[in-house]
Amino acid sequence: MHMREVKTIEVCTSPELVPFYGVEGKVVVVVDILRATSCMTTALAFGMKSIIPVATIEECRAYKEKGYLAAAERDGKTVEGFDFGNSPYTYMDSSFKGKKLAVTTTNGTLAITKSKNAHKVIIGSFLNLSSVTNYLMQQDRDVLIVCSGWKGKLNLEDTVFAGAIIDIVKDTFNTDNDSAIAAYALYDLVRKDIKGFLKKASHVKRLKGLNIKRDIIYCLQVDLYNVLPELQGDELVAMPTQTTHNTILRKVASGV
Amino acid sequence: MHMREVKTIEVCTSPELVPFYGVEGKVVVVVDILRATSCMTTALAFGMKSIIPVATIEECRAYKEKGYLAAAERDGKTVEGFDFGNSPYTYMDSSFKGKKLAVTTTNGTLAITKSKNAHKVIIGSFLNLSSVTNYLMQQDRDVLIVCSGWKGKLNLEDTVFAGAIIDIVKDTFNTDNDSAIAAYALYDLVRKDIKGFLKKASHVKRLKGLNIKRDIIYCLQVDLYNVLPELQGDELVAMPTQTTHNTILRKVASGV
Repeated sequence: MHMREVKTIEVCTSPELVPFYGVEGKVVVVVDILRATSCMTTALAFGMKSIIPVATIEECRAYKEKGYLAAAERDGKTVEGFDFGNSPYTYMDSSFKGKKLAVTTTNGTLAITKSKNAHKVIIGSFLNLSSVTNYLMQQDRDVLIVCSGWKGKLNLEDTVFAGAIIDIVKDTFNTDNDSAIAAYALYDLVRKDIKGFLKKASHVKRLKGLNIKRDIIYCLQVDLYNVLPELQGDELVAMPTQTTHNTILRKVASGV
Repeated sequence: MHMREVKTIEVCTSPELVPFYGVEGKVVVVVDILRATSCMTTALAFGMKSIIPVATIEECRAYKEKGYLAAAERDGKTVEGFDFGNSPYTYMDSSFKGKKLAVTTTNGTLAITKSKNAHKVIIGSFLNLSSVTNYLMQQDRDVLIVCSGWKGKLNLEDTVFAGAIIDIVKDTFNTDNDSAIAAYALYDLVRKDIKGFLKKASHVKRLKGLNIKRDIIYCLQVDLYNVLPELQGDELVAMPTQTTHNTILRKVASGV
């Protein structure tokens, strides 16, 4: 009998290292917990038709002029001239249903651009953790988790999240490589108090300075939505998921 | 009174990310535990006059033709036409005293090249851990630990060693950044059984296939030598260290 080869899962802690891990033939999970991929998950869960991630503010402005909703964030702040930046609460608005959104952010959109040649690019966050891991376990490809980090550097929240994915899928994947071992070890160390641990994270401190503690607490909630954003061409769209849950699994803490 | 600013220590897990952390004005510690920086430490401890790290096999061959000792390693193996590759035991030879060595390796020499614009570049390994940390604590600059990794990817042994440095210097440095927190967390998790943990490391498995278990055991020994290799121009030389120990602190396990 011919044994099927076990799929491998690796973790890339910076978009800049994507070429060294390689994406061809793989499923890539792009992660930017604070806050790009949490925003994308939220927007699609609330009915946004599609999201176009773009690298530059100029491209984003061009889409805005064509009538798209447009969000631009740099260094945690909304760029002047745009309606919104990178707060997930912005997207809990049913009037956006069926609309198209263009987005540029400091780190997350670069991670998506660098991963484009993968077999599939999906978007992961704590908010849709089970949708992501269910999908990974059902398909038959090697996986690369691409952490957006901060301006090329490793960050704690994305790496811990990569470890959370590995914890769930570790029985169906080969996790026996250095990056997966390191991310899982970090997650395993802090799993009992992720929020407490991430208070130390540089980006959490950076965001605190911007008075958006509410966003952070929101982004660390697990499985709020059953939604799987996938890159199709240039656009992220919500793929049908294989569970019977409602798209919005739990009432958002704020009461939205 | 004017308070002196606390120095910061960060960890860069791949030579490819050096530009994002930046080296200007900093002391850089280059780390390639298996085996480049362990070899360099050993060679200088045994009296080699200087070591020139070069990026390519061609450059290394040119030095060989000029009469240098020359070592070239790729993918863990000695390159054809060179006298030695990357085994530390090669350098425990007093007949090399006063000679000059040119070296090219898969990862470690790239890490040195990428760090060249730093205030100082020093070489770290378990073999000279205290020489490195004593120096770091005595000087007055920010520090970047540059892990050589494996072909752009993070590796466990270099990251754990970065955590070991942080453990020793953490009271005199600001370690409150994501990369330092992650490396220290990994080290703290495995400190009681570093050898056992590193058995999982990809590169350890790779080296095992080459039958050099002896090298690995050797490279994980702490403080065998009191030697501080520093880059001066294009050459690594042993700097005077500020302790009264002998250069070779302990008898090497093999009895050399």
